[in-house]
Amino acid sequence: MNIDGIPTRTLRAHPDRRAIDIIDQTRLPHALHWVRVATLEEAAHAIRAMQVRGAPLIGATAAYGLAIALDFEASDRRLAEAVALLGATRPTAVNLHWALARMENILRPLAPEARCDAAWAEAAAIAEEDVAQNAAIGQHGLKLWNDLIVADGQTLNIMTHCNAGWLATVDWGTALSPVYAAHDAGVPVHVWVSETRPRNQGLLTAWELEQHGVPHTLIADNAAGLLMRNGKVDAVIVGADRIAANGDVANKVGTYLKALACADNGIPFYVAAPRSTLDFACPEGASIPIEERDGDEFRLVHGLDSRGVPSALRQLPAGEDVANPAFDVTPNWLVKAIITERGVCPASRDGLLALYPEEARG
Amino acid sequence: MNIDGIPTRTLRAHPDRRAIDIIDQTRLPHALHWVRVATLEEAAHAIRAMQVRGAPLIGATAAYGLAIALDFEASDRRLAEAVALLGATRPTAVNLHWALARMENILRPLAPEARCDAAWAEAAAIAEEDVAQNAAIGQHGLKLWNDLIVADGQTLNIMTHCNAGWLATVDWGTALSPVYAAHDAGVPVHVWVSETRPRNQGLLTAWELEQHGVPHTLIADNAAGLLMRNGKVDAVIVGADRIAANGDVANKVGTYLKALACADNGIPFYVAAPRSTLDFACPEGASIPIEERDGDEFRLVHGLDSRGVPSALRQLPAGEDVANPAFDVTPNWLVKAIITERGVCPASRDGLLALYPEEARG
Repeated sequence: MNIDGIPTRTLRAHPDRRAIDIIDQTRLPHALHWVRVATLEEAAHAIRAMQVRGAPLIGATAAYGLAIALDFEASDRRLAEAVALLGATRPTAVNLHWALARMENILRPLAPEARCDAAWAEAAAIAEEDVAQNAAIGQHGLKLWNDLIVADGQTLNIMTHCNAGWLATVDWGTALSPVYAAHDAGVPVHVWVSETRPRNQGLLTAWELEQHGVPHTLIADNAAGLLMRNGKVDAVIVGADRIAANGDVANKVGTYLKALACADNGIPFYVAAPRSTLDFACPEGASIPIEERDGDEFRLVHGLDSRGVPSALRQLPAGEDVANPAFDVTPNWLVKAIITERGVCPASRDGLLALYPEEARG
Repeated sequence: MNIDGIPTRTLRAHPDRRAIDIIDQTRLPHALHWVRVATLEEAAHAIRAMQVRGAPLIGATAAYGLAIALDFEASDRRLAEAVALLGATRPTAVNLHWALARMENILRPLAPEARCDAAWAEAAAIAEEDVAQNAAIGQHGLKLWNDLIVADGQTLNIMTHCNAGWLATVDWGTALSPVYAAHDAGVPVHVWVSETRPRNQGLLTAWELEQHGVPHTLIADNAAGLLMRNGKVDAVIVGADRIAANGDVANKVGTYLKALACADNGIPFYVAAPRSTLDFACPEGASIPIEERDGDEFRLVHGLDSRGVPSALRQLPAGEDVANPAFDVTPNWLVKAIITERGVCPASRDGLLALYPEEARG
């Protein structure tokens, strides 16, 4: 999508230089800063420290990180070590493991001297597929909006949680792809952007919507229920970090509360995600590991000081007990539909298998 | 309750000096700062700017504010003007209007020269009643905890939202009164304290629990649902800003989401409030006005800088659209019971009238 009017992807590959450039998303929205990633350790750090975040972008970055790792050495041992290091960076998003498994399956049969070039090619294929799949999600989602429009010129009020926009992917985004598709098709759309404490990824969502010219309003996560009760929300759409085989959805913590409020107010709750987020090997949400992150994500708050310099303040002493789970699980019965690159399906085993019949063999 | 081990109330009256001292709660938890309130305008400002907050403390402060106003002049006109000014400070908490109506009913029949002393006496009576009623709420709530304890020595895990502790009242608190009662009775209790964006009153709750020695853990508001699904919460208890005649509850924004998560997980959701929070003239929650506050409460974040100085950062530019409703309404069917100074009742018209039969006449 656009930055200052210029179409931009979140990840730029330089195969000739064996490096990639990423946006350091920990510095957004206060500063747009590109970071060069040229070693395996830098790639692992970028994922762990959430310089890149969002399940699809984590997957693509891990694929490139593996390609970078094999430039230095491409032995079986190096391949296994790099996969293990990258795979241990974050536990919940399944795209990470999906991308690494796909890379390893391609690379392991090859002679070591052929692996590096093949890795760069496969990482590029993963990134291109992400863009194409997210664009398809946008078109499938756009059709769902049509069911919600009851009057010509009516503004669609869509609520989202966290950032599942183009910043969370290589381009387009997952949850925001149908929003961009609507906006680009001339459908009046307004987005309620939930702050998403404690990491405030809602500020990233607001930033990218602003860059693309989509009207939006920020709210505290706590305000979501009131807005729904007051009829201000036509639909909620979120991304996912992992979708279990039965349609249970692990996504950014707080998603479950929004899904409950949708159910109580008859508002459709949609989840948008590409194939790489589906985990057919995971029977249900209770089997998904939930990452517990450092309590300082909660204890410190961030913004610009009076001179406009990005800075942090301590809202809680270091010793204060904090629980900081990064995700929660929304049970399938709260999900109206899942939108993937193949279409729209009920959040159930049968629904997912109807879109992906090849998985029924397993 | 205690500050540094010394029993302390949130409001100190000095009738001889025609002034009160309050804790400036906008500076907590980073600094404990007492403010002298000696004019009507200072009293109105203290309520409007949330130096004092919490429905019961707002009521007591307004009563004293009226007493202060009548020291300068006690004519009918002055009385009416002061009631109007104080009554317009905040729209949602009904205790404010309850306290002002009670004061006015006592004062208006008196000769102007008798009004000031009577006002100080009545404000003191309101404050003393608040303390006694909250203590009674604590004892009624303590009995409810007993139903939740299935094994000796089991730690009760109670979740709360916002601050309905002693800081929100003259003493004891409403929602936290049963927590203090349990702790003081030797029942092991641990409190999940929700941050309560955007004003972060959860930090006040953590501060006062720490002062009194009650174990607690802070969480982002978003984490409440996950903790409930994972069996980490035995009960949720909150205060209220207004309870309608049918048992619908207006309380700090985000309360409704916690009530929904309780219902989905079979966890009891309790509301604790004194008589002055009940509005029998208000038929249902939809009739309660919801205060919309300045978006800078969301755009600015607060904490201590690296030198330990309280400071603010801007997390969003001034021009970014923000919606900032301060309260939401939890429908009565999500409320397991209401706890008042008279006992425990279902959240319904019949339930409330069983505790307050004198209201059935109206």
